[in-house]
Amino acid sequence: MNDRSQEPIGVFDSGLGGLTVVKELIHHLPNERIVYFGDTARVPYGTKSAETIIRYSREIVRALLKYKIKLLVVACNTASSLALDVLKKEFRLPILGVIEPGARKAAAITRNKKVGIIATSSTVKSGKYARKLVQWDKNIKVTSQSCPLFVPLVEEGWFDHTVTYQVAQHYLKDMKKNKVDTLILGCTHYPLLKEVLHNVMGPKVQLVDSAQEVALQVKDLLAKERLLRTRFRPGQHMFIVTDEPKQFQRMASRFLGGGVKQVRRYTYV
Amino acid sequence: MNDRSQEPIGVFDSGLGGLTVVKELIHHLPNERIVYFGDTARVPYGTKSAETIIRYSREIVRALLKYKIKLLVVACNTASSLALDVLKKEFRLPILGVIEPGARKAAAITRNKKVGIIATSSTVKSGKYARKLVQWDKNIKVTSQSCPLFVPLVEEGWFDHTVTYQVAQHYLKDMKKNKVDTLILGCTHYPLLKEVLHNVMGPKVQLVDSAQEVALQVKDLLAKERLLRTRFRPGQHMFIVTDEPKQFQRMASRFLGGGVKQVRRYTYV
Repeated sequence: MNDRSQEPIGVFDSGLGGLTVVKELIHHLPNERIVYFGDTARVPYGTKSAETIIRYSREIVRALLKYKIKLLVVACNTASSLALDVLKKEFRLPILGVIEPGARKAAAITRNKKVGIIATSSTVKSGKYARKLVQWDKNIKVTSQSCPLFVPLVEEGWFDHTVTYQVAQHYLKDMKKNKVDTLILGCTHYPLLKEVLHNVMGPKVQLVDSAQEVALQVKDLLAKERLLRTRFRPGQHMFIVTDEPKQFQRMASRFLGGGVKQVRRYTYV
Repeated sequence: MNDRSQEPIGVFDSGLGGLTVVKELIHHLPNERIVYFGDTARVPYGTKSAETIIRYSREIVRALLKYKIKLLVVACNTASSLALDVLKKEFRLPILGVIEPGARKAAAITRNKKVGIIATSSTVKSGKYARKLVQWDKNIKVTSQSCPLFVPLVEEGWFDHTVTYQVAQHYLKDMKKNKVDTLILGCTHYPLLKEVLHNVMGPKVQLVDSAQEVALQVKDLLAKERLLRTRFRPGQHMFIVTDEPKQFQRMASRFLGGGVKQVRRYTYV
């Protein structure tokens, strides 16, 4: 057993959304400790430039390294699209994003080779998902659509509202026209709209949630590197945010079903 | 004539929205130079904590002071609600927010003493508008509503979309029930939804746009302090943003109808 196996997994996101990844990690890797960093004072990333997102991501990785993380998951799709390559070059630890696992899964399950991607503007503009899909299978036809209203709709809690259905119908028009049979949910907030998306796209379209895929990939990688944690000490996850911790704690507890005890505030100097 | 009269007016906002104030300032004070600061790398403010907004506002005022501004307009409603008092205490120049002018106007024009306020969550939570209104006239009954979806709808350009009407109907339900005759648009983005708001509220309800009011108040104050600029040199406004300048330049040019030439990037250290 490697010494580093007892160290935590780092997860970072622009805000709350990455908790969908935390939930999957806890589910698939119950022995692991997680240090989560949510950049709540600068959220959202999805409308900001590559340069800014790279700068923010770099700062956050430096902050997480102080917690001796053995592996980093970039849970934010926008940061995964725009900053992952830079981070991998600059930091010497295993780093996983959410793009590659999501694209791989979609490429594996599509039957008609027509895959859709919904994501933030910056993620769509980066073209990362589309490139990864074609890398896996050059016959795949990709339809991409940015959905800027989905995150605020989720944050309003309108998971099932008429308005959400209408917005989804608007955004998914081309997906339906182009007959995609597989739709990648390319933003951590979107799994919360699964029901609406499922109803609008119809029962034959498969939804790919990157959070599940990345958790499985983390498990594989930790096993391969002999970094899996064997001892179980529950309730030791740590949460770091850049804005007010209390609101995050309330939301995160609701989302993860309790267990969000240690929430610290990080202030950029 | 005071020497300082030739110096520019500083305007700050969390992003693009404050350009509605710039437009009014240019209209009412065509001789003045404006230095605009849009915190596009950290936008939006409306969901963040008071502490974070105060910290950001302080940083921005320090950056603007390097341009020797003679007066500062806090164009952002959220920053006006949460940071104005602190800024006034810490910095020695005339500082105007958008809350007081908007509240004063609403108090002056309401006939049935029932005033509505729509704004971001943080602005509503601060209670500033409501307090100012009651300060002007203790008989005024206030109805407040946060409208988190309005900003993303404006940014999507859905000024006239069915969805926008439905969202407005949802948010304005209590305003109509409580029979407000005056509605304060307590966020710089909302004037772009005037038509929808007007149609949903009906022709008898007056909409108060703080941008107009603050421009008039700036004019009064500059006149009183003998700081009005008399010489006219057009096209010398300066724009400073914290994210990528090009996108801002494109959007701002469209919004102001050209004239957005000097856009600089400011990076926090």
